Amino acid sequence: MNEFALIERFFQRSTHDSAVRIGIGDDAAVVAPAPGCELAISVDMLVEGRHFLPDVDPESLGHKTLAVNLSDLAAMGAKPRWALLGGALPDADERWLAAFTRGLFALADRFDVALIGGDTTRGPRNLCVTIIGELPAGCAITRAGARPGDDVYVSGTLGDAMLVLAALQGRTVLDEATLAALRARLERPEPRVALGQRLRGVATAALDVSDGLVGDLGHILERSRVGAQIDVASIPRVPALDERLGGRERELALSCLLAGGDDYELCFAAAAAARDALRAIARDTGVPLTRIGTITAQTGLRVVDENGNAMAAVPGAFDHFRQ
Amino acid sequence: MNEFALIERFFQRSTHDSAVRIGIGDDAAVVAPAPGCELAISVDMLVEGRHFLPDVDPESLGHKTLAVNLSDLAAMGAKPRWALLGGALPDADERWLAAFTRGLFALADRFDVALIGGDTTRGPRNLCVTIIGELPAGCAITRAGARPGDDVYVSGTLGDAMLVLAALQGRTVLDEATLAALRARLERPEPRVALGQRLRGVATAALDVSDGLVGDLGHILERSRVGAQIDVASIPRVPALDERLGGRERELALSCLLAGGDDYELCFAAAAAARDALRAIARDTGVPLTRIGTITAQTGLRVVDENGNAMAAVPGAFDHFRQ
Repeated sequence: MNEFALIERFFQRSTHDSAVRIGIGDDAAVVAPAPGCELAISVDMLVEGRHFLPDVDPESLGHKTLAVNLSDLAAMGAKPRWALLGGALPDADERWLAAFTRGLFALADRFDVALIGGDTTRGPRNLCVTIIGELPAGCAITRAGARPGDDVYVSGTLGDAMLVLAALQGRTVLDEATLAALRARLERPEPRVALGQRLRGVATAALDVSDGLVGDLGHILERSRVGAQIDVASIPRVPALDERLGGRERELALSCLLAGGDDYELCFAAAAAARDALRAIARDTGVPLTRIGTITAQTGLRVVDENGNAMAAVPGAFDHFRQ
Repeated sequence: MNEFALIERFFQRSTHDSAVRIGIGDDAAVVAPAPGCELAISVDMLVEGRHFLPDVDPESLGHKTLAVNLSDLAAMGAKPRWALLGGALPDADERWLAAFTRGLFALADRFDVALIGGDTTRGPRNLCVTIIGELPAGCAITRAGARPGDDVYVSGTLGDAMLVLAALQGRTVLDEATLAALRARLERPEPRVALGQRLRGVATAALDVSDGLVGDLGHILERSRVGAQIDVASIPRVPALDERLGGRERELALSCLLAGGDDYELCFAAAAAARDALRAIARDTGVPLTRIGTITAQTGLRVVDENGNAMAAVPGAFDHFRQ
């Protein structure tokens, strides 16, 4: 049973609570505690040995722990407000904690997020952040609104994090400058918070690419009951990935682009009529937006290679319970 | 450095966010997302080997995982609404998950709590629940309002959980019926949700006894800048503890009463004028309330034994980073 089946089977239930606008199954839940007031709420758990290595720089980890949650809010179009941290730590190492909280608070301050609660305990290192953001009522960007004919976009570049992970694991070799640049992408991902809020009323569906483009876009298609065609040639990528796509490391490059997680870029659908608006949003936010395909009425995801041929075998999504 | 010093040093910061009514340091944070709307929010993390044993009954664990969070809301006087669960699991054991979620949802349903979000991942077993409740604006019961002359109360009985833990660890012997009854108290604590809401406007300060009476009451005294005197003789207890108090297991009994955690009863202060109101609340909710002492202007906690003598050595509070 994979992670999504597990959640669906054991945790997803209908509720009679009409204040729950969006429950389990999107980037964040949305509740309406008062008329006209909606909150987006999400939780993410990072486990040592799975989401980060024991020797990770604690300041970067502090950043990333919050960043992955901010990314969930960005994908809903919400403005981040408050965070809570549950943390299991093997010891009360003051230097580690000082660095971790420095990284966490530096990012929190940039987005005006207040840490309002926490629980610390001893145990195998585990960091669990709950984030709460606000939304104008009815304005959440869900995964369910994509329509046939919509364009499919991604922000930034994809595959960076997986490529540098491959280099760190000795599966490929990167020059020093590229390694440093991509390592920052892996360790200090930049949540697309401003972009997400600008996409309200523009994107018809959105999520953040945390598990890989194919798998994550698949969630939009499933929820929106549509299909899509995307073009490998148009997926935005760094030069180091671009080189590999045409060489003997093509397989790795395809995996990075299509199945690489941890980039925390936004993937979204928008009507063709929104192209001008999106150009302006890209310019205003400084985040490149690239059109990589089209939503189709026919379900399923069709990935087209650089020669215009549909790919038969597409690298899949990351699954916490399969790997 | 103990857990509280660690939180204070690394996580507690002032915020300029005026919507944060109560930040880190109480049973729950309180935020005001809209005028007239206040939410109490709390997070609790349970780690295998620390808060529960690997062979714990998963249905009981599902109950307890949510119960400890509901208890935090009860201590604020909030009405529980929504919960999120972050869970690391060593495997996707379907039987375990089915039992765990059965216990969790049974309790959630009793208190009309909707599980709105979650994150599951593989890792050493760790369960992190965030709970959100609502409050009439300005009505949260904090730890900071106790005044000299107030009575000090606890609900239910104290020390049950620690006594049964001692029995399970072979440090004392309980007859089978007592063992079963107290084991339920340890494994399926009953959060005092209805009581907490009734205490709004009545209690001047409150918290839940999760780490032991002396340590937890100490938080009220510190925040309220007052002291207290409590009488061992008046602390409500089950017969099995009462017997031990007068015998050769007196030390264990005192530890259970004064330092035993995990009972999740409420400890609160209230003006003497509220005694009648509290009798009515106890009757209505079916939860016994016992007056165990008095708030004093002089700071510090004075614990008086059955002979009226101040105890010199008082068993202390549980600390996740000291033990």
